[in-house]
Formats: sequence, C-alpha cells, structure tokens
Amino acid sequence: MTKSIEFYFDFISPYSYLAFKKTKSLKVKSSINFIYKPILLGGLHKLGGITAPAFNERKMKNMKNDCILIAQKNNIEFIWNSKFPINSLDIMRGYLSIENEFKEKYFEICFNAYWKNDLDISNSEVINNILEQCKLNKKKFFEKIKNEEIKEELKELTNNAFKNDIFGAPTFVVNKKIFWGQDRLEYALDECKN
Amino acid sequence: MTKSIEFYFDFISPYSYLAFKKTKSLKVKSSINFIYKPILLGGLHKLGGITAPAFNERKMKNMKNDCILIAQKNNIEFIWNSKFPINSLDIMRGYLSIENEFKEKYFEICFNAYWKNDLDISNSEVINNILEQCKLNKKKFFEKIKNEEIKEELKELTNNAFKNDIFGAPTFVVNKKIFWGQDRLEYALDECKN
Repeated sequence: MTKSIEFYFDFISPYSYLAFKKTKSLKVKSSINFIYKPILLGGLHKLGGITAPAFNERKMKNMKNDCILIAQKNNIEFIWNSKFPINSLDIMRGYLSIENEFKEKYFEICFNAYWKNDLDISNSEVINNILEQCKLNKKKFFEKIKNEEIKEELKELTNNAFKNDIFGAPTFVVNKKIFWGQDRLEYALDECKN
Repeated sequence: MTKSIEFYFDFISPYSYLAFKKTKSLKVKSSINFIYKPILLGGLHKLGGITAPAFNERKMKNMKNDCILIAQKNNIEFIWNSKFPINSLDIMRGYLSIENEFKEKYFEICFNAYWKNDLDISNSEVINNILEQCKLNKKKFFEKIKNEEIKEELKELTNNAFKNDIFGAPTFVVNKKIFWGQDRLEYALDECKN
C-alpha cells in the first residue's frame, strides 16, 4: 500500500530544500507519496510568536554552517543563498496558481534556483526564467498571483497549518503525527509503517 | 590518539540528557573524551535574545513528543519531567562547587534524577538525596553554592560560551567547530577524525 506523507514547505527554507533532496532518492526506492503543502513560513512564525533563526545572529551563523554540512554528508548540491532571506510571497503564491500538472516541476525548479543556483526567486526576471523552464504562460502567472483568491488561499493554508500545531518548515505529517525538521524525515518514514 | 569533544550542558535540557545517554554507549566503543562544560541555559538564551522552546506552546508540545520519540528509537529510559522547566541554578552551581573526582557521578545522577526519575532537582530534599548518593557533604555543598566565587564562575562560563557563538544545549565543540543539538553528535564525532 502506498503511504502518504504531508510535506509542509516554503521555498525560502533551506532545510525544506535539503529534505526534498533527501526524499528524491527515497522515492525511487520506496512507495511513499509526498503531498506538498505550501505555507508562508514568515506568516507561520508570526502566528506562532517565533523569531526565525535568520533573524538571530548566532542561530543564523549556525544554520548556514549546518546546512552546508548536511548537504556535504548527503551528497546534495547546495549553495547558501547570497540574498537570504527574501520575500517568498510571489513564488509561493505561484505554486498555488499553476495547474496541478506543472506543480512538481515548478517545485523542483524553484528550490534548485534558490538553494542550488544562488538565484533571487523574488526577482521577476528570475521568475520569468523559471516559468520558461516550466513552459508556463508568464502573463497568466503574474495576473493570477495578484488574484485575491490565490492570496487568500496561501493565507488560509498557513492559518490551517498553525491551527494543526505546525510552527516551522519542513514539517512532515503522517497518521496525524507531526515531525519537524529535515532531521525527522526518517521518523516520518518509520511512522508510515504503522 | 584520544580526541576531545567539549559538551556544553544544563541539567534542565532534555536534549542534553539524550545526547549524554548516546555518548555513554559510544565511550565504550571509542576513544573519545568528553569535556563537560556547564552553562546556565536560561542565561545563555537571554544573552542571545532567544525564547526557549519551553516558552512557546507549539514548540513545547513538539519538543516533548520529539524527546520521547528519540528516547524510544535509541533505547533510552526517559520520562518528560512533570515540573519542566525549573530553575537549575543551584544544581548547576553544585556541579562547579564539587571536587573533580565527584563530577562524573554527580553529572549522571542529576541527569537521571530529572529526566529518568521525574524528580524536581531544584528541590533541596531531592538535592540532599543526590548528595547522599554521591557521598558528598551536604553542609559544605549548600554553603559553597551560595559562594560568590561559584556564582561568578557559572556566569562567566555562560558568558564565555556566548562569546564563542554558542546559543543552546547540548552544543559540541571539536576543532573550534560548533555542533548544536543531540542530532549533531554524529557530525561532532566525524569531526574528531580530522
């Protein structure tokens, strides 16, 4: 039986990128189905009264070293983004605005752009380039992400995550159990056996 | 050659307890020397402008579940302390006040009392019992922990940790590199090979 893991993410989160890369090698080997759940990490932190590590000098320094080390240990291509943190609102709304068939490609290209290729995914030229790679219509994309419905949807998804005790990214949910952080991917996978 | 890992701890920290239990099985197999570095976690958080997970509803809930799960996966006896968090000032000052030959035993008994036996290690009767097990003189102990010198020493150790970019517990330091959290014990051990 195929088991599902909900994977809460924001493209801005380096640990979400690292977790995603780990899942890529897993998916080949196992029958786990990842359901990607977009949230706005900044909004979620605000709701939870949490100061992100990016805004604490020591935590930021540690996070950078830690991510580089995790990438090395897991053979993941990774560059600490020179523009971290950015506003991920447009690119996250974009994920919601596109048709389902494009989501997986968009998901991977956005993560790679930010955490592998050191691009600023809040920049419209960079977004244009991502859309070209995904063969998505640019005009339609930029219209849609300004749409009130899309704006509300991302807000609601973030609010719902908060209501379900989620406070960071990546977060994995299996059997209603919450596993926070790329370090807990293995525990989430274990939970799939139950 | 025996390699050393500095292990920053506070008895109040559940992840420090879990890391300590992991090292116990390691020490038998390897030639790693752990140098215990007491710090006051509350003070360190204050210096770093960090709100401890214990004071955030969602983080607290997650931390409890997470610790229980880590203990299960690693066959570590663990009970979430019913009085968490407490003031660890006396018991931490105590670690500094006793002679070196007693430190290892005191270290283990304090951690077990708080995270295995659900005792309140800020309570003087519980401390009395710990001192009896360590064969330490109670009168001398309670006099010493009120000593200005001991108070200053713990403050200075915490300030020094902060100056060296440490912001949480457990933290491992090897070759001047910082590894934060029980999840990074393995990385710290890998670093010993360099």
